[in-house]
Amino acid sequence: MRYSRIQLRGRPVFAEVADGLAHVLDADPITGRAGRTGERVPLAGVDFLPPVIPGVFYAVGFNYRGHVERHRAEAPARPEVGYRANNALTGHRTPIVRPAGVSGRFEAEGEVVAVIGRTLKRASYQEAQASVFGWTIGNDVSAREWQHADRSFWRSKNSDTFKPMGPWIETGVDPLAQTTTVRVDGGIRAGFATGDMIFDPFDFIVETTKYLTMHPGDVLWMGADSTVQLEPGNVVEIEISGIGTLSNPVVAE
Amino acid sequence: MRYSRIQLRGRPVFAEVADGLAHVLDADPITGRAGRTGERVPLAGVDFLPPVIPGVFYAVGFNYRGHVERHRAEAPARPEVGYRANNALTGHRTPIVRPAGVSGRFEAEGEVVAVIGRTLKRASYQEAQASVFGWTIGNDVSAREWQHADRSFWRSKNSDTFKPMGPWIETGVDPLAQTTTVRVDGGIRAGFATGDMIFDPFDFIVETTKYLTMHPGDVLWMGADSTVQLEPGNVVEIEISGIGTLSNPVVAE
Repeated sequence: MRYSRIQLRGRPVFAEVADGLAHVLDADPITGRAGRTGERVPLAGVDFLPPVIPGVFYAVGFNYRGHVERHRAEAPARPEVGYRANNALTGHRTPIVRPAGVSGRFEAEGEVVAVIGRTLKRASYQEAQASVFGWTIGNDVSAREWQHADRSFWRSKNSDTFKPMGPWIETGVDPLAQTTTVRVDGGIRAGFATGDMIFDPFDFIVETTKYLTMHPGDVLWMGADSTVQLEPGNVVEIEISGIGTLSNPVVAE
Repeated sequence: MRYSRIQLRGRPVFAEVADGLAHVLDADPITGRAGRTGERVPLAGVDFLPPVIPGVFYAVGFNYRGHVERHRAEAPARPEVGYRANNALTGHRTPIVRPAGVSGRFEAEGEVVAVIGRTLKRASYQEAQASVFGWTIGNDVSAREWQHADRSFWRSKNSDTFKPMGPWIETGVDPLAQTTTVRVDGGIRAGFATGDMIFDPFDFIVETTKYLTMHPGDVLWMGADSTVQLEPGNVVEIEISGIGTLSNPVVAE
């Protein structure tokens, strides 16, 4: 099943995506029992929102072997989460805005995202597997000069529109057996096996929930193998097989 | 006015605090027009929840002159925010749980907290002043060995119960003209002028909203002058004049 959030007559609603249509739902499918209202909208005309607004927005840094090797970085010894911020979220097809003050590397990273479906603490690996409601796609946009100049990631990774997510949550896919492809203006710029992680999503959930309770709707962005430069005027697409394609134009502020 | 969130018959509700009573409200006073329902509960028997669950949980690190000097740290040149996570929030009177794996310094910091009341981007200093709905109290608990051992603050500052907040939001106080007092088991362990900040809350809002949109319900924890060691069995109180007292027992996991 594929679940999205869409803007309908100025209000956010949940929808099930099937047969080229967004079937409007009467409840949040992550936290409640959701049924179709009967209303449906052709996908081509849908205003996609981020499919979930998390209570906690977890993100992983260096977590792909190739990424660590190319940066000559030390591989992380433990699965330790970091954080991103909800103001930066934006939906499928909406613009990524490069702020006026950004110069230098302005980069996309295509990431598989776990959407948590249960409240869990001290989860076993099997409980972690059962806790994921579904999987979506994130584009972890970074302004690298700010990242190096600032004490935290506040504006380098959390400026408005720096975190496209969507287009929907896919509940029936093995996230570790897929391929991530990043295209800019239709040309392939990066491609990697989604499962080539140092620690997988369930390793992170096990380690995190030793200390932190995770809740339905929390998201965990799993990092990327490769970074891809973006310029205003580009359209960047992140395709993950079995899930879908997240597409966003890049514009200058 | 003082606004809290309380647990009533198993559900969270908003309440106005006056005359030793929690007067139940029919809406969220931050985002809507809230009126009293007529139901009221004596404060002594109230189960306090964090007064707001933020969309984004901003926090400031080194921001008091004395704190920077005692750590022989370099004073920050710009007001740069960091982040904390909602799972760690807990209410007035609820226990701070020291995890089994924590040894060494386990510390409280008493902080004044701005609760944002408006959507704002590129705010002027005057707009920043007008954007704050009210002020509450935060206790920024840290496990220092984890803070130094880990790549991020995930468990050192965001383990469950490490972020007591409350007991209420006070809308009619000047946050820069108050005194913060931290007591452990009734003895004063720290005291400082709340306004002795390097950058004030409005400086942070101006700088942050150059790049990030802040939303109603977002919180900004303003840092502390002093840290105070906690042990299981202690009761830690953060009093900020003009706002109130946030009290929490400390227990071992």
